[in-house]
Order: sequence, then C-alpha cells, then structure tokens
Amino acid sequence: MRATTIHAPFDMRVEDVPDPVVQEPTDVVLRVLRACICGSDLWAYRGEAARQPGQRIGHEFLGVVEAAGSDVTGFAVGDLVVAPFVWSDGTCEYCAEGLQTSCPRGGFWGSVGSDGGQGEAVRVPFADGTLVKLPADAASDDRLLTALLALSDVLGTGHHAALGAGVTKGSTVAVVGDGAVGLCGVLAARRLGAERIIALGRHTARTDIARAFGATDVVAERGEAAEAAVRELTGGQGAHVVIEAVGTEQSMRTAVAIARDGGSIGYVGVPHGSGTGLDLSVMFDRNIALRGGVAPVRAYIPELLPDVLAGTIDPSPVFDLTVGLDGVPAGYKAMDERTALKVLVKP
Amino acid sequence: MRATTIHAPFDMRVEDVPDPVVQEPTDVVLRVLRACICGSDLWAYRGEAARQPGQRIGHEFLGVVEAAGSDVTGFAVGDLVVAPFVWSDGTCEYCAEGLQTSCPRGGFWGSVGSDGGQGEAVRVPFADGTLVKLPADAASDDRLLTALLALSDVLGTGHHAALGAGVTKGSTVAVVGDGAVGLCGVLAARRLGAERIIALGRHTARTDIARAFGATDVVAERGEAAEAAVRELTGGQGAHVVIEAVGTEQSMRTAVAIARDGGSIGYVGVPHGSGTGLDLSVMFDRNIALRGGVAPVRAYIPELLPDVLAGTIDPSPVFDLTVGLDGVPAGYKAMDERTALKVLVKP
Repeated sequence: MRATTIHAPFDMRVEDVPDPVVQEPTDVVLRVLRACICGSDLWAYRGEAARQPGQRIGHEFLGVVEAAGSDVTGFAVGDLVVAPFVWSDGTCEYCAEGLQTSCPRGGFWGSVGSDGGQGEAVRVPFADGTLVKLPADAASDDRLLTALLALSDVLGTGHHAALGAGVTKGSTVAVVGDGAVGLCGVLAARRLGAERIIALGRHTARTDIARAFGATDVVAERGEAAEAAVRELTGGQGAHVVIEAVGTEQSMRTAVAIARDGGSIGYVGVPHGSGTGLDLSVMFDRNIALRGGVAPVRAYIPELLPDVLAGTIDPSPVFDLTVGLDGVPAGYKAMDERTALKVLVKP
Repeated sequence: MRATTIHAPFDMRVEDVPDPVVQEPTDVVLRVLRACICGSDLWAYRGEAARQPGQRIGHEFLGVVEAAGSDVTGFAVGDLVVAPFVWSDGTCEYCAEGLQTSCPRGGFWGSVGSDGGQGEAVRVPFADGTLVKLPADAASDDRLLTALLALSDVLGTGHHAALGAGVTKGSTVAVVGDGAVGLCGVLAARRLGAERIIALGRHTARTDIARAFGATDVVAERGEAAEAAVRELTGGQGAHVVIEAVGTEQSMRTAVAIARDGGSIGYVGVPHGSGTGLDLSVMFDRNIALRGGVAPVRAYIPELLPDVLAGTIDPSPVFDLTVGLDGVPAGYKAMDERTALKVLVKP
C-alpha cells in the first residue's frame, strides 16, 4: 500500500510500504477513508520532535474494517469505525476509568513499528479497546464523515481542555489558540454550557469559525494587549476558565495572565516551551489551577458521537483544505505556512 | 508595645514600637495571646524574600479584642478571636466566594506599614471580614488555645492542599513535606476520608506526628529512592493525590514523580524554585493536575473550628517549642536549624 513517511525535517514522502496484516488475534486492519494532518504533526515536520527516517505519521483516521483477528468481538469486516489517536487495550485499570492514554499496552499511531493514519490502511492493535463503531450510512455523507473524523482527536481534545478547566453552565471561558483544537475548545465549551466564550485570534477566517462555533467575543490583539483586552471584557478580573491549545511559552504565559483568580487553565497544547510560560509564583498567589494533558479521546467519543450525528455540534469547518494521499506533503507545507487551518486527507 | 522586627537576614529583634490604635472605623486592636513562627517566615529570615529593615513579621495569631472601631459589628472588647494570615474586607466578590486571599483590599500581616503577629498587639483592618470568634472559655485551656492557633494558617493550608488535590473518601494520598503544613495536610486528608496516607519524611519526631495524625505509611527515603518507595506502596502507579508542602524544585519534582497518572498535586508550599521542578511534558503525558496556592484560610475556619473544639482533630502537636516574645529570635534559629518543628510564641 501507499503511506506517508517522514525522512527528515520538511521531507515528507508518500511511498510504497508493506500492506498491513492481522498479526495478533486482537488486531483489525482498517482501510482508511478519511485522515488528516494535526498541528502536532508539525512538530515532527519542523524537526522539533525527533523521528527516525522513514517513520510513518498521522494519528487521526476513520475507515472500514478490512480484516479482523480471531479474538475481535466488537467489529466485523465492513464496519465503519473511527480510531482515537492512541490505541489502548480497553481492559486495564486506566482504560476502565477513561484514561486510555495511560494504558500500559497503548501506543501512538506512527510510533516506530506501527502504521500511521496518513496512509491507505492501518493495523489496529487491541481493536475492541480502541475503535468505536459509526453508523454505516455515514460513509455516504461526505460532510458528516468529515465531522466524525474530528472525533479521532481535535474534538475530544478540545472537550478535554474544557472539562479539565471546569467549564460548566454559565462559565466565562477564554480560548488561547485559533487552531483546530482551540476552535474545538470553543465548540466544547459552548456544548458544556459556557455563557461567554472569548476567542483569541487574529485571522478572521479562523475567528469567523470561532464565532460560528459559539465564541461571543474575539480578541485580535496579542501579548499584553490581548491580556488587557480580556481583562476589559471580564470586569478587570480575567476568565474563570482558560483553554490553552498551543503549547508554547507565550501561549501559556497569556493563559496564566488572563485567568481569573481562583480559575483554571485546561491545557491541551503539546508542551513546546509552555512549562517556561507557567509562572508558579503568580499561579500560587492567585490560586490558578492547571489541569489537562494528552486527551483520552477514546473515553469521550461515545459521549460526543451522538451530538455529531445529530448535527448539534459540527466540527467539520475546521477542515479547510482537502488533498489526496499524494497531496499530503503539500498539505504539511500549507499548515506549516498557516495557509491551511487543517488538512483533510482522502486516500 | 514590643514586637518582632527583621533588620537583615538572620537579624531578628524584639523592639519597642508604637502601640497600635484604631485608625479606621472597621479596625480592631487585638492583644495577642498566642502567635507562632511559620516555615515561610524563614524565607525572610534567610534573606531569600526581601524585607525592609525594621519591618514587622508574623502572620499567625489569636488574641483578645482590646479596642474596636465604630463600624465593627461582629466583635466587642474582650472577645477571643483568631486571625487568618491575611486580612480581607469580607464584602467583595472574592471574599463572597471564599477566595479571601484575592480580596483587592486585603493584605498580609507584616507587610510594610502593618503590624505583625509576633508582637504584643496588632491593628486588624476590616475586622468583621477578617476575624473569627472563638469560645471565651478556650482562653483558659492552654492545649486548646494552641490547637486553635493552627487555624490561622497551617491547618487551613493543609486543608487547602488536600481539597485542591481532590482528597475524597478512600483516596490514596502522598504528602511531600514533614513541616507543620505537611503534617496538617495529613490531618486534613484523614479528616476528608483518605484511606491511605503516605508521609514522606526522615525525622522520626516528625513522622511520629504524621502517624498520630493519620499517616498509614512513612517513606524515609529521599529523591529517586522515595519515588520508588511510593510506587512500591501503590502497586507501581503512584498516589492519586499528592500534597506538596515545601515549595522547592526537589519537592515539586518528587510530587510529580509520585503522582499517579490522572492524579492531582495540591500545592501549598510557597514557590521557591518549585516551578522548575514542574516538568510540564511529564504532567501532560500523564494528565497530572496542579491545584493550590495561597490558602484562603478565612474561608475554612468556620468549617474546621468545630472539629478542633470537639477535639476530633488536634493540630497542637506541631508546636514543639514554646518561647516568650524575647525568645522569638532564638525560635527562628531553632526552626532554621530544624531543631524545632514549629515555635509557639506566648507574648
């Protein structure tokens, strides 16, 4: 089959690789219908996260079961399923409590020796613990299929941030980050009942989506001016709930600065310097909490799926560029240069 | 009157200072019956927190109302009262929600221009918002009076850590720090229903108190050996709840290392390097939350007071050395050299 590989920073290729097969009785082989490129893939693309030459990539995908191991009970050939961005055994203590990202037998798509989502097919370990079934008729609904793809990562990750920061009915929320995760954070916050949602972002194409997703205010300023603007909007106090969806020093610094005393930061931006932006003395004096991390999206799919199917939430607008498999390298370039928000891949 | 002043690192004096008087109609003047020295006072003593020469010090005290301003409604001359370690107006939005440490009109005892607790008397601003009345007959019960003094800081601070970290019935808790706050964290965790409490500490005098307060296990190792010991005690996973009551880089590093995936750190150690011990990448991968800060003990006194009066919790054993006002400089030396755990002052 053909799949995306990374050979060096900025060197993405689409190559022939061995067809995946069922290796363990708990495996499934999935034919990928939709995949996408994640903002976090750019850390590898830019060489800021190390990869071995030829390593696969892509951790967001949905597709059709093509083969199933003898121990797989939940899925049959032909089933439409979505995969969360990590696999997990579904049976350990962590999986049982909904923290599948800490499953000792779990792993990330595209790690050494495993398939990535940006390819024609994927071997899925622990299929029963990992995959979630989708209605078969969704396969013929292009818009819905795209929306469902967001369950593999960005929608559940935005939800994790909103939950971690403690969004409840009536919350005032500020969202740092206008990427797909930040936008899904807006969607998740509105879904959880936030009354006021302040989206920080300068790109009107993105802030327009934020408004469509439920943002009540947009702050286009950056740095200290942004902090002042959020304070102005919140009676001088800051937001009770802040979603941090970038992971840089500056984004975390902003998150701390715009949080209200006694408030919380829900952080889901993969840390790339964000620890340095965390001034613990300030957080201590102001009792600002920090909760988040890598999102156990597997736990959230069953909760979010009905709303996506019903159309009460629709994350599909975060995908603004569609490519075939051969277009993946160009897709990376577009996201790196911020000419695309999130790239949909139709292998 | 006589009061403790700090002139330079390691230069504590007991000097004649002006008698406090009612300056605002909301003031009370309090005759101090009991005060004490806090672990956090040592940061000033050691010169690691800047002070102006002659500044007052001490933020934990209880005493008798000697004079009250015309607007004070809650207290009369002769009332026995305890003061939390910050004053607060009792009327603002933060006070109303129990975050008195963020009161815009609040302040710390011993800050420039204000009295400190380690003296004969204190002018208390916003007395109605700040003080809490104690039963008059407690004044004649030396042990009880000492226990009640812990409400001014260490007991409420330990409670804040336990609450922040989410201790509930059945929790497994690890406590980093064998000072008075860490020990009160043990007490608070047990009070909130923790089933297992692992106290980290090497000094048997302190760990004996921890056991008396409810610790089920003591880990005497330090650093990586301590981490291994806590993991050993928790089936390899670490503690769901960690109380960090020191504030150094090493203590926070230990707290992160011994937290279970998906767990929380309740931090109340005043940050002195602890931000550096916070590895955000590790916390992200393992979904470890951080919640805490300067404790709004004023909010907790009404809840904790009945238990102290009833004797169901008794923090008085944390005081292991008693001095008069003239003995305060020696008390600092004893705490700095760790020959005393916490010094009680009877002016």
